[in-house]
Amino acid sequence: MLRLLHNASQPALKSTQRRFLTSRFYDRPTLDFLLFDNPAIITPPTDATTQQVLDSASSFVDRYHHLDPLFDKFEPQFDPAFMNDRSSPTVSPVKMHEQVKEVLDAYSEGGFTAMHEMDLPFPSLTAVSAITGSAFTSGVLGHWVLTQCAANLLKAFGSPDLVAKYHEPLTDGRWTGTMALSETQAGSSLVDISTKATPTDTPGTYRIKGNKMWTSGADHDMTENIIHMLLAKTPDNKISLFLVPKSIVNDDGSLGERNDYTINGVNHKMGCRGISNCYWSLGDNSDGATGYLIGEEGKGLQAMFLMMNEMRIHVGLSAALCGKRGHLESLNYALERKQGRSPTTKEKETIVNYADVKRMLLTQKVHSEGALALCLLASSLADSSKTSEEDKHVLDFLIPIVKSWPSEFCLEANKWAIQVLGGYGYTSDFPLSQIYRDNRLNMIHEGTHGIQSLDLLGRKIAGPGFPLLIERMAGCVERAAKTGDDEIVPMASHVKSAVERLVEVTKKLGGVGKSGDVQLMLANSHDYLNMAGTTVIGWLWLEMAIAAKAKSSDPSESFLHGKVNACQYFMIHELSKTKHQARLLESLDDTVIKTKVEEL
Amino acid sequence: MLRLLHNASQPALKSTQRRFLTSRFYDRPTLDFLLFDNPAIITPPTDATTQQVLDSASSFVDRYHHLDPLFDKFEPQFDPAFMNDRSSPTVSPVKMHEQVKEVLDAYSEGGFTAMHEMDLPFPSLTAVSAITGSAFTSGVLGHWVLTQCAANLLKAFGSPDLVAKYHEPLTDGRWTGTMALSETQAGSSLVDISTKATPTDTPGTYRIKGNKMWTSGADHDMTENIIHMLLAKTPDNKISLFLVPKSIVNDDGSLGERNDYTINGVNHKMGCRGISNCYWSLGDNSDGATGYLIGEEGKGLQAMFLMMNEMRIHVGLSAALCGKRGHLESLNYALERKQGRSPTTKEKETIVNYADVKRMLLTQKVHSEGALALCLLASSLADSSKTSEEDKHVLDFLIPIVKSWPSEFCLEANKWAIQVLGGYGYTSDFPLSQIYRDNRLNMIHEGTHGIQSLDLLGRKIAGPGFPLLIERMAGCVERAAKTGDDEIVPMASHVKSAVERLVEVTKKLGGVGKSGDVQLMLANSHDYLNMAGTTVIGWLWLEMAIAAKAKSSDPSESFLHGKVNACQYFMIHELSKTKHQARLLESLDDTVIKTKVEEL
Repeated sequence: MLRLLHNASQPALKSTQRRFLTSRFYDRPTLDFLLFDNPAIITPPTDATTQQVLDSASSFVDRYHHLDPLFDKFEPQFDPAFMNDRSSPTVSPVKMHEQVKEVLDAYSEGGFTAMHEMDLPFPSLTAVSAITGSAFTSGVLGHWVLTQCAANLLKAFGSPDLVAKYHEPLTDGRWTGTMALSETQAGSSLVDISTKATPTDTPGTYRIKGNKMWTSGADHDMTENIIHMLLAKTPDNKISLFLVPKSIVNDDGSLGERNDYTINGVNHKMGCRGISNCYWSLGDNSDGATGYLIGEEGKGLQAMFLMMNEMRIHVGLSAALCGKRGHLESLNYALERKQGRSPTTKEKETIVNYADVKRMLLTQKVHSEGALALCLLASSLADSSKTSEEDKHVLDFLIPIVKSWPSEFCLEANKWAIQVLGGYGYTSDFPLSQIYRDNRLNMIHEGTHGIQSLDLLGRKIAGPGFPLLIERMAGCVERAAKTGDDEIVPMASHVKSAVERLVEVTKKLGGVGKSGDVQLMLANSHDYLNMAGTTVIGWLWLEMAIAAKAKSSDPSESFLHGKVNACQYFMIHELSKTKHQARLLESLDDTVIKTKVEEL
Repeated sequence: MLRLLHNASQPALKSTQRRFLTSRFYDRPTLDFLLFDNPAIITPPTDATTQQVLDSASSFVDRYHHLDPLFDKFEPQFDPAFMNDRSSPTVSPVKMHEQVKEVLDAYSEGGFTAMHEMDLPFPSLTAVSAITGSAFTSGVLGHWVLTQCAANLLKAFGSPDLVAKYHEPLTDGRWTGTMALSETQAGSSLVDISTKATPTDTPGTYRIKGNKMWTSGADHDMTENIIHMLLAKTPDNKISLFLVPKSIVNDDGSLGERNDYTINGVNHKMGCRGISNCYWSLGDNSDGATGYLIGEEGKGLQAMFLMMNEMRIHVGLSAALCGKRGHLESLNYALERKQGRSPTTKEKETIVNYADVKRMLLTQKVHSEGALALCLLASSLADSSKTSEEDKHVLDFLIPIVKSWPSEFCLEANKWAIQVLGGYGYTSDFPLSQIYRDNRLNMIHEGTHGIQSLDLLGRKIAGPGFPLLIERMAGCVERAAKTGDDEIVPMASHVKSAVERLVEVTKKLGGVGKSGDVQLMLANSHDYLNMAGTTVIGWLWLEMAIAAKAKSSDPSESFLHGKVNACQYFMIHELSKTKHQARLLESLDDTVIKTKVEEL
């Protein structure tokens, strides 16, 4: 705690000072506005600590942000000479840029890794990640999120012994954690994993043999231990969850011998290079690597879903951050760059004044701030789900959207960020190309769009979350209409129509599914995911506009009016697309499914 | 000639053998279909040589394609130790991967650089580029296109002496050429260049002082000379065009002393790394670098537009190739990859059978083949423009679309190509991430989207090309309706409505522009560009469907029916978006222009 507060030196900025005075990495006034001024969707943190941890996070970014491009330039390297070297706990064939460790150490020394233990509201934690992650999409956010999720999973399902041994070193930042799910033949389809776990004579201890693929952070040379949350099949062929440490931990907490697994290589990724991504094999030199059962045999997938839902919020957040950072970087550039002549005055012009540049900036703003609001809403629901069954259902429905909408539309935003800079956008002198590359992974991380859209349309629409969400959106429309405000009321009618369209389309597609034509229902699942997502973001923009109006005593306050204006842009230029999507979805077009493979 | 034909060993493939038997880099049956079977839009080459050069191009790609990933991995490096080293003609601070030279040499030895001198139809040349460029977006296509364009420009406007000295070495591949337009302060706005050219006592010879930025291929260590087509201002402050050689060429053709310019560095790009991109300064050590006036003083921009139009077709083509190659790579993967279970049979499934994977493949197909058709149409019009004023006008209108639509929508296609592969899509084990990164530059190369959309809406719609284009599209609709074919007729009505919408929207926006509200007209220029482009591509798909039907004697012929099916997909899923775009454009929304800078 003390360590954390010690950093809290930066005074909170007034919203009028706006982003021009803040770091280019995050938009603190917008984060504060979302957290504290939108009680209808995000329960405002009332604790005394949130502002201080946000300030600490800002200080952290200001101090270390310059390192992130290095992690991109010098991606994790694999040195086969160290594949079988077990001479020390940290030795590894996976060589990270040495300053990744420096940043991670600073992160845990700042107390950030222990935040989950501080009983802060989840939206506050998300906002902290939104600040720190804006500078370190993968280097910090990746390592920390995985470690935190592993710690949470352990705490929720692990035996007291396992928790006692492994939980604290994960939360104090001494060790890192991973999710080891995918295998070469089983990426999206976890039921097809082939890694086997055989029980030993010691209850809860298993021998694990098999291969894992796509494991982020599976190995590196930065911490003394790495704790894998790993799925494997028990002899009854059921999927179970195991804790697999890099080094065995003795009863006194000291490290024993190295576990029997081998890192066989790293995947070279186009982005998110601040974290390694490995393929590895377990039990090559013995009857199996040592693993400890977490929860019950056969309940691995259910347990893992807890972690995956949390991870999916973080993937959405990571995409939103990339979108927001691209927005800020390109806005800063556009405010300074002079090029060409005004079409009216024929004078030399700063490019921010061109209509098409404004369009590109507004598109980025509505996508990234809408996505950020969605992630904070999901975090707020994750908190309230503990006591409200209804909130749990709403969150359950929203998860595929939280994962997917930001990752598609904030990538689109980054495309426009590059475009604002012209040639500079695609060179390494500016950070845009890295952000764009980092962000491209988010459409695939933690379940592709295809998988998410099947989840939404194939399962979630039939659950109790959908009608509850519709009710909430309708409630907002009602509140908006009651304001009588001549900017808000027309926007409310946009959202009202969009929500009605979503209800109709859902009914129609659900009906097709129930009548047994699953293929036809799923043929347009991607369009449905986008339509549902855009409708939800439209609702959130309406909430933000209402909140901005409620907060603003002075109608000329540009920060707040900027929110209302952005809402209007979203209604007219983005939400309106759902009309087209609805028509298309209701036509139940079967072109895709009747296309023969040889015609593709 | 002989050299070229010498390579023509690969037999033409029957379309039934389809792409599964061909290289993953290009789709020869589709190219053949476009070139030879679509006489309504592309004049079919009747020469005996076209098939042979296409076969040669295929052999070239089959032989050298494996080198392209190396050019991406080992991007051009700048070694300051050689900045002032003029000890030999080829010495350069810009170090290319050594095999770039090998490929370029093979390309010119194969006779490809001399193709322009062979009087081949332009669509045939474009088709050759579509094959060779599919494997070497930048390494070959970049160098060759620039060199060819420089040679054409020289031939069109240069004095007989200059042509005699410089033209042949450019076309036989001994030297390379560049376009040196942009400067740091003048990217999209060439009127603001500050490089100065001062006449000397020798008529036609000038001393040039200034700086250039973003010059592709400005320097490298591969050829004995490099010839820059450079814009500079003459003392009357007018923009003129100059030929600036790396080494001065003596009257006997031998190389004299090095010209006085200095390469100051290379831009590190996220893609297209097979060609360098430099910033450089002229005349640092003297009263100026030597340049030779091409054409008349003050007519530089007009001359350069000739080259730029050609370049813009090539940028569109490069984007289309990236789109097509991504389509083929992801199709191949989808045909082999087993993952998950069928939603109906619950058996293990090859992913190509999933509806959402088919959607991603169809989207890529319609975007990339539509874009390819557009580039071939533009090439055909470039030929016929020599004798037809009407065709010249139509091409003039289409140029901004040819440059822009492929570069936006084939990038979208590449996004889906990555998505089909999941995690493999973003690793360097597969070529998708390189293609995606290469393609991202095309939205900026040769004038950004913003610039193109201003050209289209601010200038082109008022010219004679627009009504002529509309007439042609309407003519196609009429022909389609007359077929009486029950697949073609409904598609014709889609295109008919889209064309009518485009006419209406253009009238409305043009009216606003004429009434003096230029800002309001241009506020939605990007949407207009997209709408016009999508309508044009819709027309081309209809032409392809008509041609496929006309060619097919057997309705089960999957290659040809695949075209009809793709057309249907484009109509329903893409062309239908123009309804929404039209409504939005006709509403003359002014949200963007009324947005204050501080609200962005």
